[in-house]
Amino acid sequence: MKQSKLFGKTTKEIPKDETSINAQYLIRGGFIDKSMAGVYTYLPLGKRVLSKIENIIREEMDAIGGQEILMPALQKKEDWLITGRWDIDVMMKVKTYFDKEYGLGWTHEEVVTPLAKKYARSYKDFPFSLYQIQTKFRSEKRAKSGILRGREFSMKDLYSFHTNEEDLNQFYEQSKKAYFKIFDRVGIKDKTYLTFAAGGDFSKYSHEFQTLTSAGEDIIYICNKCKIAINQEIIADLKNCCPECGNKNLNKKKAIETGNIFKLRRRFSEAFNFKFSDENGKENVVMMGCYGMGPSRLMGTIVELLNDEKGIIWPKSVAPYQVHLVYLGDDKVVLKEAEKIYESLQKEKIEVLYDDRNESAGVKFKDSDLIGVPLRIVVSNKTLKNDSVEIKKRNDTGFEMIMTSELVDYIREYLDAK
Amino acid sequence: MKQSKLFGKTTKEIPKDETSINAQYLIRGGFIDKSMAGVYTYLPLGKRVLSKIENIIREEMDAIGGQEILMPALQKKEDWLITGRWDIDVMMKVKTYFDKEYGLGWTHEEVVTPLAKKYARSYKDFPFSLYQIQTKFRSEKRAKSGILRGREFSMKDLYSFHTNEEDLNQFYEQSKKAYFKIFDRVGIKDKTYLTFAAGGDFSKYSHEFQTLTSAGEDIIYICNKCKIAINQEIIADLKNCCPECGNKNLNKKKAIETGNIFKLRRRFSEAFNFKFSDENGKENVVMMGCYGMGPSRLMGTIVELLNDEKGIIWPKSVAPYQVHLVYLGDDKVVLKEAEKIYESLQKEKIEVLYDDRNESAGVKFKDSDLIGVPLRIVVSNKTLKNDSVEIKKRNDTGFEMIMTSELVDYIREYLDAK
Repeated sequence: MKQSKLFGKTTKEIPKDETSINAQYLIRGGFIDKSMAGVYTYLPLGKRVLSKIENIIREEMDAIGGQEILMPALQKKEDWLITGRWDIDVMMKVKTYFDKEYGLGWTHEEVVTPLAKKYARSYKDFPFSLYQIQTKFRSEKRAKSGILRGREFSMKDLYSFHTNEEDLNQFYEQSKKAYFKIFDRVGIKDKTYLTFAAGGDFSKYSHEFQTLTSAGEDIIYICNKCKIAINQEIIADLKNCCPECGNKNLNKKKAIETGNIFKLRRRFSEAFNFKFSDENGKENVVMMGCYGMGPSRLMGTIVELLNDEKGIIWPKSVAPYQVHLVYLGDDKVVLKEAEKIYESLQKEKIEVLYDDRNESAGVKFKDSDLIGVPLRIVVSNKTLKNDSVEIKKRNDTGFEMIMTSELVDYIREYLDAK
Repeated sequence: MKQSKLFGKTTKEIPKDETSINAQYLIRGGFIDKSMAGVYTYLPLGKRVLSKIENIIREEMDAIGGQEILMPALQKKEDWLITGRWDIDVMMKVKTYFDKEYGLGWTHEEVVTPLAKKYARSYKDFPFSLYQIQTKFRSEKRAKSGILRGREFSMKDLYSFHTNEEDLNQFYEQSKKAYFKIFDRVGIKDKTYLTFAAGGDFSKYSHEFQTLTSAGEDIIYICNKCKIAINQEIIADLKNCCPECGNKNLNKKKAIETGNIFKLRRRFSEAFNFKFSDENGKENVVMMGCYGMGPSRLMGTIVELLNDEKGIIWPKSVAPYQVHLVYLGDDKVVLKEAEKIYESLQKEKIEVLYDDRNESAGVKFKDSDLIGVPLRIVVSNKTLKNDSVEIKKRNDTGFEMIMTSELVDYIREYLDAK
């Protein structure tokens, strides 16, 4: 992509109420645009990052046997009355001109349970799990953390269905591993803790995945022995002890919930009378689990963690482009050489943002650091004297000179490295 | 995918109010599930088809320089008051518990115009075009045509921005070609006509793309000489003549609008005071166009056109799987061979649905015809006697016996053929 044509310039104008790092860097870098409080447009750079995160999540959900579906945002009032959740504050309510009323989905138990009930009746149909990556809506009174907490946001929600608790437990453990694989792939695993949280009426605990950041709205207590954490909401119940090892020496930290898994057990299957017939033809209530993770919140969290005073430092796996090719000067020979490199990288299917703008080196470097593409490649009169380009990694301070003839191999090796 | 594990069985139960072919076949085949009138869940098979259609549209929009973004569904009431469209019937209105009111987007001029205005100010920033593939909402009083007309549906909407009318016209012509490329790729080009329609207050005509089907709600008049059509709404204005050649011998047909392109000109840029400064520093109002196409409606249209009495006949480009591998009998040796073929096809990255169920040949063939995957491959005791499988194309009546050792090459050749 030629930067001169890219929609969404870097800017210094930040809405006054945007105090979070993720909102500031993402707006300044031209990744998102604020439409209203808690409501954002993803500009071309931001859409690319979001799609990459969604695809990583998709791959890991597929890997544990999740089947992708797409459920509607418009939801049936009657079904929410059945579960007693119609009048919960976070629910946005929709009206048509002919006075039909809907709920706007902030979660999908009320859709997925009746759906699964239609198709799964015998024990032979179990276990199975369904997921979607879909837009959710929440009436958040204060929306002030950028894309960490929006009124409209992207969500992956998976629901699993089982004939017995043991099977639910097994899948639940599998999902934990899948979640850590995702955190690893998007570069925030080191800061992310499996965290014990309140289980509601129907489970002793649920588990959250909490990622340490000062932008987080949650307080967690970390057990460094077990590498797990406890959400503040239940620390008193646990008498300030680690539930795994009894350790009382816990570390209090601010964190953000980047995932949440929950054994729903019979909460929704009972409400919708969702039963299966077992090997003996006897009817039993289905066991369920749910597993949430927000791609847009993940994107915001990555920015909160991976940045410096100059801008964002995207991990390779989710960066909007792999390479930022920067042309310096106003020499036509250099320009021609830069175009040649641009085309050769594109031909090699290397994702390249090409700064072909008529701007100073200072402006270009500043923008490049702000946008945060992993590899910056500079082509100038100076570098070309040695048939070379200058390479700098965004997460490193050093520079390297590489022969243009060896550039593709260099990039491939860099991208393939863990 | 093993069919025994696939969520969404074929079924004979159709909601009574679903009279359209697309709804009947898609529900019976396990592609979609009706959640409410005009609101559907896409089951695993249906989600795969929808994603493929979306990707084809995405590729063709990228090819004409469109930049993908993602705008919100929640829209600012104030902006709809500016354009005078807040109280249009189709708008669903959303309320939060703290009495904030939003519109739920059925189109995005009120979002994209203020957005573009923020980033494009100089003639040097033009032309450009932005598109999204996003969920839209409409208060349709009668929703009775399956996924042809939903209350919630997938939409591709592109918006183009220009400094002068000539440039707008040029892009508009380019978009027509891109649309026909899409219709060609999804297999409905032969039945699709560029159609003159009403232009609203700000343009003489707009253009629709109308696809002939008895399920269509529009009446068009076709000029067989020019291969174009005229929407009934303007045929009287045109004195029952083709606007291109004057031909009066027009063919009246039912059709569905599968695309719509519109020269908005200054309608929205004026409303939002969106100007650019030209080469001389003079301010001028921006010219705009918009270009819509609904992936879910396209999916429904494909089903309306490409089917027989047994079920759907998907084109290769959008079929949920490329190959339907069907195992017959209950011989363990045959089963083992079928599994081997299944694994070898997966290894070759051929998309295969594998009917490993314990059902009769009759049930399996019936389901296979209903689901409509392009190539059916049968493995049975009989075929294996000759180290072969039996191949049948869904859009053909003949059978072929192919040596299992030549199967992958056969499939590759079939898939690569136009």
